[in-house]
Amino acid sequence: MTTPKKRTLGVLLFDGFELLDVYGPLEVFVHAPGVDAIMVARGAGCVASAQGPAGCADASWDACPKLDLLLVPGGMGTRQLVDDVPTQEWLRERAASAELTMSVCTGSALLARAGLLDGRRATTNKRAFDWVASQGPKVLWQPRARWVDDGNIVTASGVSAGIDMAGHVVSRLWGRETAERIMNGIEYVWSADTPADDDPFAVDS
Amino acid sequence: MTTPKKRTLGVLLFDGFELLDVYGPLEVFVHAPGVDAIMVARGAGCVASAQGPAGCADASWDACPKLDLLLVPGGMGTRQLVDDVPTQEWLRERAASAELTMSVCTGSALLARAGLLDGRRATTNKRAFDWVASQGPKVLWQPRARWVDDGNIVTASGVSAGIDMAGHVVSRLWGRETAERIMNGIEYVWSADTPADDDPFAVDS
Repeated sequence: MTTPKKRTLGVLLFDGFELLDVYGPLEVFVHAPGVDAIMVARGAGCVASAQGPAGCADASWDACPKLDLLLVPGGMGTRQLVDDVPTQEWLRERAASAELTMSVCTGSALLARAGLLDGRRATTNKRAFDWVASQGPKVLWQPRARWVDDGNIVTASGVSAGIDMAGHVVSRLWGRETAERIMNGIEYVWSADTPADDDPFAVDS
Repeated sequence: MTTPKKRTLGVLLFDGFELLDVYGPLEVFVHAPGVDAIMVARGAGCVASAQGPAGCADASWDACPKLDLLLVPGGMGTRQLVDDVPTQEWLRERAASAELTMSVCTGSALLARAGLLDGRRATTNKRAFDWVASQGPKVLWQPRARWVDDGNIVTASGVSAGIDMAGHVVSRLWGRETAERIMNGIEYVWSADTPADDDPFAVDS
């Protein structure tokens, strides 16, 4: 058995993040071989979610090591954060050196405002579709997509869709068997054969 | 429109809790009318999950207000915690004054060791079924159940099943329409008509 490649997954926390956008995909990735997960925020310490319960940031932006995988959640906090230039700069810098950058829900608005999605295919929460789309007029927004894989950027639809996206990414990076083992282990009803555009929450384009 | 009844949901954190056991149901309950969620641990502060990333406990056991709803997650930390007498006492005390006590995954082993499940129907993670069952020989363990509603105690199967259980509990306490609104809002594929024993991960009894 070969030693799996080490990958560091960084999960961005910010005031008003959506809980399941973070902890759904994280639950999947922490079971993938060789993954170290690190929670990162502008400053280390507790960061309040949109509904109150807080997550702990292990590292500040500056103290955070190189990230192989970067996960950006959504949540009501994105409504203010889209205008924050330091966040846009940090995202551009970290995405440039990452193997893969991911967002869940309105997290794609942050990637869009950082310019990371220009000319690329992406999706977001279908209840917030128009607002998110307005944050990135050069983005090829997909109204029917559980997730969109556009190479080194993968974006998920709303909240729970992040779990399906994580299953897809694990399947892509570690293989289908690993993805199925993880999804069965967490008793998530999932199939590697489900296409990315199988989206019960799609909106009209 | 009437003001919804206020309910305080307490979520128990302990070293080695499983992330999605906590944040899956929590994502559902925080959107229910009148719910205040409070994360509680033996001591307030950051509490490490089984895989590392930590959650913040808002209150210690002693400082925690009366809980209407109590959620007990599972995770590898339960393997040690089942033998902890103060945990058993705290669970008994808080469950006695709660409207509803819930567990996800191996959290039911903690309820079992506290004596809260004796003579009652309950379930747990199907991968850990034999170990959990051994913690409560007087419990009517259900090998085929996504969740089990036994009145004032509701137990879920492994990890993701906690989200389905939360949908059921919201439907029971706030009505089907509220449950459907929340589950659609978080883009979770769910139906209030799915029976509790629709369990793709069932084990032989």
